[in-house]
Amino acid sequence: MGKIWSEDQRLRNWVRVDVEAMRARAQLGEISVAIPDDLQHTINIDAGAIEELETKEGGTGHDVMAFLDYTSPQLPPALRPHWHYYMTSMDCGDTGLMLQLVESLTLIQEDIIAFMLTLRARAHEFKYTPMIGRTHTVHAEPITFGVKLANWHDEMGRHFERTQQLMKRLTVGKLSGAVGMYTLPPNVEQIVCQRLGLVPTITTQVISRDIIAEYVTVLGLIAGSIRKFAMAGRLMQQTEVRELQEAFRKGQKGSSAMPHKRNSIGAENVSGLAAVIQGYTHAAYENQLTLHERDISNSGSERIILPDASILIDYILARFTRIVKGWSVFPDRMLYNLSLTKGLIFSQDVQALLADKSGLPRQEAHALAYDIAQACWETGADFKQALLDNPRIASLVSPSDIESCFVLDEKLKYIDHIFDQVFGTHNGLGD
Amino acid sequence: MGKIWSEDQRLRNWVRVDVEAMRARAQLGEISVAIPDDLQHTINIDAGAIEELETKEGGTGHDVMAFLDYTSPQLPPALRPHWHYYMTSMDCGDTGLMLQLVESLTLIQEDIIAFMLTLRARAHEFKYTPMIGRTHTVHAEPITFGVKLANWHDEMGRHFERTQQLMKRLTVGKLSGAVGMYTLPPNVEQIVCQRLGLVPTITTQVISRDIIAEYVTVLGLIAGSIRKFAMAGRLMQQTEVRELQEAFRKGQKGSSAMPHKRNSIGAENVSGLAAVIQGYTHAAYENQLTLHERDISNSGSERIILPDASILIDYILARFTRIVKGWSVFPDRMLYNLSLTKGLIFSQDVQALLADKSGLPRQEAHALAYDIAQACWETGADFKQALLDNPRIASLVSPSDIESCFVLDEKLKYIDHIFDQVFGTHNGLGD
Amino acid sequence: MGKIWSEDQRLRNWVRVDVEAMRARAQLGEISVAIPDDLQHTINIDAGAIEELETKEGGTGHDVMAFLDYTSPQLPPALRPHWHYYMTSMDCGDTGLMLQLVESLTLIQEDIIAFMLTLRARAHEFKYTPMIGRTHTVHAEPITFGVKLANWHDEMGRHFERTQQLMKRLTVGKLSGAVGMYTLPPNVEQIVCQRLGLVPTITTQVISRDIIAEYVTVLGLIAGSIRKFAMAGRLMQQTEVRELQEAFRKGQKGSSAMPHKRNSIGAENVSGLAAVIQGYTHAAYENQLTLHERDISNSGSERIILPDASILIDYILARFTRIVKGWSVFPDRMLYNLSLTKGLIFSQDVQALLADKSGLPRQEAHALAYDIAQACWETGADFKQALLDNPRIASLVSPSDIESCFVLDEKLKYIDHIFDQVFGTHNGLGD
Amino acid sequence: MGKIWSEDQRLRNWVRVDVEAMRARAQLGEISVAIPDDLQHTINIDAGAIEELETKEGGTGHDVMAFLDYTSPQLPPALRPHWHYYMTSMDCGDTGLMLQLVESLTLIQEDIIAFMLTLRARAHEFKYTPMIGRTHTVHAEPITFGVKLANWHDEMGRHFERTQQLMKRLTVGKLSGAVGMYTLPPNVEQIVCQRLGLVPTITTQVISRDIIAEYVTVLGLIAGSIRKFAMAGRLMQQTEVRELQEAFRKGQKGSSAMPHKRNSIGAENVSGLAAVIQGYTHAAYENQLTLHERDISNSGSERIILPDASILIDYILARFTRIVKGWSVFPDRMLYNLSLTKGLIFSQDVQALLADKSGLPRQEAHALAYDIAQACWETGADFKQALLDNPRIASLVSPSDIESCFVLDEKLKYIDHIFDQVFGTHNGLGD
Repeated sequence: MGKIWSEDQRLRNWVRVDVEAMRARAQLGEISVAIPDDLQHTINIDAGAIEELETKEGGTGHDVMAFLDYTSPQLPPALRPHWHYYMTSMDCGDTGLMLQLVESLTLIQEDIIAFMLTLRARAHEFKYTPMIGRTHTVHAEPITFGVKLANWHDEMGRHFERTQQLMKRLTVGKLSGAVGMYTLPPNVEQIVCQRLGLVPTITTQVISRDIIAEYVTVLGLIAGSIRKFAMAGRLMQQTEVRELQEAFRKGQKGSSAMPHKRNSIGAENVSGLAAVIQGYTHAAYENQLTLHERDISNSGSERIILPDASILIDYILARFTRIVKGWSVFPDRMLYNLSLTKGLIFSQDVQALLADKSGLPRQEAHALAYDIAQACWETGADFKQALLDNPRIASLVSPSDIESCFVLDEKLKYIDHIFDQVFGTHNGLGD
Repeated sequence: MGKIWSEDQRLRNWVRVDVEAMRARAQLGEISVAIPDDLQHTINIDAGAIEELETKEGGTGHDVMAFLDYTSPQLPPALRPHWHYYMTSMDCGDTGLMLQLVESLTLIQEDIIAFMLTLRARAHEFKYTPMIGRTHTVHAEPITFGVKLANWHDEMGRHFERTQQLMKRLTVGKLSGAVGMYTLPPNVEQIVCQRLGLVPTITTQVISRDIIAEYVTVLGLIAGSIRKFAMAGRLMQQTEVRELQEAFRKGQKGSSAMPHKRNSIGAENVSGLAAVIQGYTHAAYENQLTLHERDISNSGSERIILPDASILIDYILARFTRIVKGWSVFPDRMLYNLSLTKGLIFSQDVQALLADKSGLPRQEAHALAYDIAQACWETGADFKQALLDNPRIASLVSPSDIESCFVLDEKLKYIDHIFDQVFGTHNGLGD
Repeated sequence: MGKIWSEDQRLRNWVRVDVEAMRARAQLGEISVAIPDDLQHTINIDAGAIEELETKEGGTGHDVMAFLDYTSPQLPPALRPHWHYYMTSMDCGDTGLMLQLVESLTLIQEDIIAFMLTLRARAHEFKYTPMIGRTHTVHAEPITFGVKLANWHDEMGRHFERTQQLMKRLTVGKLSGAVGMYTLPPNVEQIVCQRLGLVPTITTQVISRDIIAEYVTVLGLIAGSIRKFAMAGRLMQQTEVRELQEAFRKGQKGSSAMPHKRNSIGAENVSGLAAVIQGYTHAAYENQLTLHERDISNSGSERIILPDASILIDYILARFTRIVKGWSVFPDRMLYNLSLTKGLIFSQDVQALLADKSGLPRQEAHALAYDIAQACWETGADFKQALLDNPRIASLVSPSDIESCFVLDEKLKYIDHIFDQVFGTHNGLGD
Repeated sequence: MGKIWSEDQRLRNWVRVDVEAMRARAQLGEISVAIPDDLQHTINIDAGAIEELETKEGGTGHDVMAFLDYTSPQLPPALRPHWHYYMTSMDCGDTGLMLQLVESLTLIQEDIIAFMLTLRARAHEFKYTPMIGRTHTVHAEPITFGVKLANWHDEMGRHFERTQQLMKRLTVGKLSGAVGMYTLPPNVEQIVCQRLGLVPTITTQVISRDIIAEYVTVLGLIAGSIRKFAMAGRLMQQTEVRELQEAFRKGQKGSSAMPHKRNSIGAENVSGLAAVIQGYTHAAYENQLTLHERDISNSGSERIILPDASILIDYILARFTRIVKGWSVFPDRMLYNLSLTKGLIFSQDVQALLADKSGLPRQEAHALAYDIAQACWETGADFKQALLDNPRIASLVSPSDIESCFVLDEKLKYIDHIFDQVFGTHNGLGD
């Protein structure tokens, strides 16, 4: 990712656009010059030297003009009049930027796929590994760890779909000149874009920044998911819970003070970086605010936020993929935690049983189960026993009915349906 | 839009979901009760009374439980055991919310279409009305006002496309119970969602907030475009520019101090509100951070940001549509402003001419035109005359060549191409 | 707080400023008219009627002009020429807004003080109640619950200090007219501001929005602290931890599905709302971007974000104060949790002991303790016993040395110092 | 600024803290070892080598542990047991970070002072240079360019005050160990902090992030002001306005396409970067959300946002100072622009005159002036002449009264008062 966003790559893209423009004009018969096949590769690019031409005393104060001053003398003399002919800086600048964004998003898509493959593998590994589902940090009802991961896979599938739709909007280029009115004929733009794998878009000189702002918001959404998943890992590693643990290498230290520590530092790290990515949205929205046909307030801003956001999302996707791969998972502890509330996690089934069998309105069934369950919560008593001991309950349902409410497998019976939904053929990534 | 987001509508959606769930169970033979066809409409909803059941001393402290306490007694007794049976609050709550979001986005799409129709009409009205294109607030080259509006239309077309893609992700519902493991069989969910026009999605109790965060970011992107367009209007109304003016009613006052004022207040107003919409992205990203299977930190937040963002985007789209419709446009002034730099706006054509006719490398042609143009900028001299008077120029090109550079119509010759691109058949909205 | 931000209050403040301006001019001898002492109170304000004058067909389209049209006829005829004389809308509008902000911040300060008093009381209640300190969600070393709360008190003390410093910048007014050049003499401004308890500030018509943006950022910082504290409560209520519990009223329901639930919903609710408050920072920063001497893009925006942010911070401060007051705290469970790692939480003391007594470099002492502690972490063995059984340790330190490392009270010996730091005389709020 | 935030400087600060801690313990008689006076400077720091110790196969995976492994062998053997004794990573890490922040803020204060000195100089240069004040982009009433700059100076004075108040909160350190309970006695912390120029603060291991979030929000507020000022420059450089121009070096290019261009690129650049700075607020707020006693989600985030925000604010303050210094200002054009509305900018004076002399209620005086002024706005007629020609006006006031309304100097008569307010002794920076 660093390479895509390097200064060298940025300038290389300008060469590509400017050479293709000349080539298109020749193809259309606008100019009759011979353009060497390997022209693009014979042009030397030295980012430092070009910056020097821009910033030195008496320099151009303009990056594309410096680029042209640097490259023009390298061309065969006959081509020099036609170099960047009737083009404006953003013809190569913005088109080149879109090439970078397309490459960058392609890499992010690969990261997403790699992450989804890891999620799929681990979801199947723990498909039938029961653990408690928690809502409001309190035990709710059983799930399996595989189902938790399947939900993440489903969510990442939506992100992949978003990147695909965004990719189509990103894959644009322009050669319509200083204010988008076409100083070169539109068919030059058509040919150049086709060669670059882009689709022409009309502009006001610059490609409208709604597209680039969308790129940043989509990265922010992905980051938001990673942050949620990381939080799940952090909470499951809490000492009282200990249902999983980040890979901890021999010799790795958790604390300079406390030798015993094994911390959830990877998940914490990606959480913080995710928030940094999301914060770039502010500037991305700002960059939509182009004055008149264009201004460059977006330019310096984008040279920070686009590389940084791209590099960070690549980093946290790859790192979190490794984290999930490396998790030590403790099914025994998950099972143990399921028992902590002594049966209260089946209270809904008791409530439904009462509504079913007693003919009580659902709300009265709830109230009845509520009184007993809440008492057990306070005292720590066993819920099933409390039900069996309760005369009102005894008058409504049988002991074997009650027993039937406390069956873990019964709670997990739709796992296959869930997995079919997520890993079936409907998914954006296919099977 | 206010109606969609009313408390009453929210509760009505819960009724819809709960009734459909009962109906689906009957259809599947899970229960054998007669459900009146008009049941949904016979259930009275009184938001105040339900809130009272929640918040009063000894109340439920839980909105769905209060809703159930309020509605259950209204049902035929035989249905009461089956009301909200094996359902969790979010089965009706989140599914109902998605119904609201779908309706809301539909309205926003209508706003976008209405705005695009206005843009199309005014773009064609001013298709051939020349004005100066400005970059970095400085005169660049001629455009037409119609082309400026065509660019906005193109941008709004992308937003429409985004809402279509988002709509598909929004159109989901769930009936999978307390932790998404299906307490009711999945085919109940299937039937209920189908009746509501939704597609089932797996959840962890709540629908993942990446979808809702996306809704907010898309609104933020649209707001960013409106803000840009509004800024264009504000700058064109600047007293020194006066190329357009917001509709100003007879009797309307611009200032309590200064009787002469006619201000660009509508455009300013939508600008500020656009930033408010964008700011909701922060909370929307935060709401992605669900702990474990769910928490309700998102709930109060969403009850502010979703109605407010939706109402504001509806407002600014509709208001800015009216503003654009109402703009007084001054073509004479646009023409006058084109002349302010005495020909400098044709400097690129001179540069290209020199590269074409003299065989000078493009960079030398630029340098030559640059020296003369910059001198004219300083002194206010007429650029064409300065060229004609310049011996170096005379040695390279003929006076008639120079004359040929200063033809306004020449700069506008690709307008039809641009309009074809924007208003042709390819556009998301069709023709 | 709702009252401070009501439309009625807003208009009342305009009356105050305009009456005081007239009075000041009379006092300075600029006009010789009798101004009734109770003039301010005899002027009727009807927000609806004034809005009607602004928005009706043929209305002013300007709020202050509508206000003047409504109020002018209520004045004694001799005063009408002098009403809002040489004043611009923002003379009353912005000065009135600052009055609202000052009142609002005063209320927030009261909320902070009430919260700090609650923190102080509960901190002292649990001053010596040991619990485990956790870093990276993993057990670190013992603290007391009182110390945790003392840290929060310290943090809120900084917020109080921030509000005091902000208050000084907020307490400003202006009467310098349409572009801040003083259409009325500066001594009128001086007198009016003094009567309103404000200090004059120069402006460009409007008071610079850096001040108001600061107000929002300070609210965002406070919200960030509440969100952290709320998260602490949520995590301590996690079923595996159960060190505290939000007050749960008899009859209150935790779930419509699961009768057993007692959830941490208050803390979750304030968390989500805190993020909403922080999100207003985006628009507040935007509002700093005044074009030229002023525009009104800030106006509609501020009419949303300032009331909403103020009302929300007031709400979450008051609600979280009640939550902290209502917490059931379980010292026995805290003590039990301290034992979960079987002594590993004293590993630093063992490391320090080894460095002290054996002359080992600190890093080697760490490595030695690390090997044993990590093995215990894996196996669940008792740390002290493992040390006693270890021959290398035995060669370096005595059994009684080892025993001396495992003394809980030793870890808590500086509590008084900490409490002195927080609740001593240095604190912003005094003692 | 880059140096302050270098990796080398970060590690150097750790050395400082750890050496001072050892020295304090010796001073207190806790250890009896000789500590060379120049110890701090004899310890070699190699950021690359330390990172290698952290990240290599089998490395510490912990930065402070790697730092200790690297530095410990460099100490005299007798000191090695006491190196980082009973300290946790954040004792040196967070204390060192605060040293960086204090240095950074000091540099920012110097930038602010330099900018204010420039504003002061240019404000006095143009103290009496009249220009039109604009509200809602429309001509309002005259100001002077000096007054515009004086307003900016006033605003920067508030920012300076904010940095002073923030500085006090930033100037803190801590040595209270792993969970803030003091593993070393508090008087060690007292001595170390004093030597470092810091004040001890209680912590939960880490210094609470409200302080660091405040640092970022204050930078965001400053950035917001620079963005506003930059916008003013951009708008005044608009070709139709041309009241000022950014310095444009000979040879500097404005466009690769259009040789005539002189653009407002510096102001645009700082505008975009200002928005980037503000965007870091999102992550800074997030970093307040520490879980339990600490987590490291803030750490990676801060290593991006703190250097970047600091470097960017330093850059835009310094660059914009140069921009303001370099502005070519065109008083003749300012004067010319004042005449564009043919007297309408004096409409308020006419309104006030009518209220004064005719006894008309102020609102009727406004209505009368309004009708005439609006007609002139439409037709372009001369306002004074229109008044003189109007029979209703003639019946109320004399021609010489009317003449007296159109005196530019009269509008500027309180300039000295304004300058006294801003540059008098009350200002934070003194005189």
